[in-house]
Amino acid sequence: MSDFRFAVNVLPKPGILDPQGRAVELSLPHLHVTSVSRVRIGRRAELTVSAETEAAARDVVEGLAKELLSNPLIEVFTVELLEATSSTTSAAGAAS
Amino acid sequence: MSDFRFAVNVLPKPGILDPQGRAVELSLPHLHVTSVSRVRIGRRAELTVSAETEAAARDVVEGLAKELLSNPLIEVFTVELLEATSSTTSAAGAAS
Repeated sequence: MSDFRFAVNVLPKPGILDPQGRAVELSLPHLHVTSVSRVRIGRRAELTVSAETEAAARDVVEGLAKELLSNPLIEVFTVELLEATSSTTSAAGAAS
Repeated sequence: MSDFRFAVNVLPKPGILDPQGRAVELSLPHLHVTSVSRVRIGRRAELTVSAETEAAARDVVEGLAKELLSNPLIEVFTVELLEATSSTTSAAGAAS
């Protein structure tokens, strides 16, 4: 078994209204920032999955991203592998 | 001038309570998911900066991340360059 640390990035679909991103854009002039545009605000989840293979772990993450972490009607998500830690050192378990 | 697309990932500091992450962890058994742990939920912002250099653009993004997109008392952020598009092709502007 290995531990895989993943990130799931959830953002509003292109074309879907993004009130938080709009709020940030509207506050930029007050901060004297004029070079920033196209702000989108979403969520980021980071989580650890124990699985035999990276592919198996990724399946779990994609399932969660679809069912729990995003709303597929209005959001898109991407999955990012951050770290893989093997914990199969024969019978001796590694300290967590 | 070039356009730089950045992402800012904001997550609760280690040790800081994360009620959203906890809520996801508590709902995992209902979805029959037992292999997932250490869930943290934060925000992700994506934005475009027009600047002469990547370093100048990154400065703008880090300023915004500190002042607007995160609460430095309880959150940490990381900045990620997603894409750089040069728009200085002599006098002829590239189509957007």
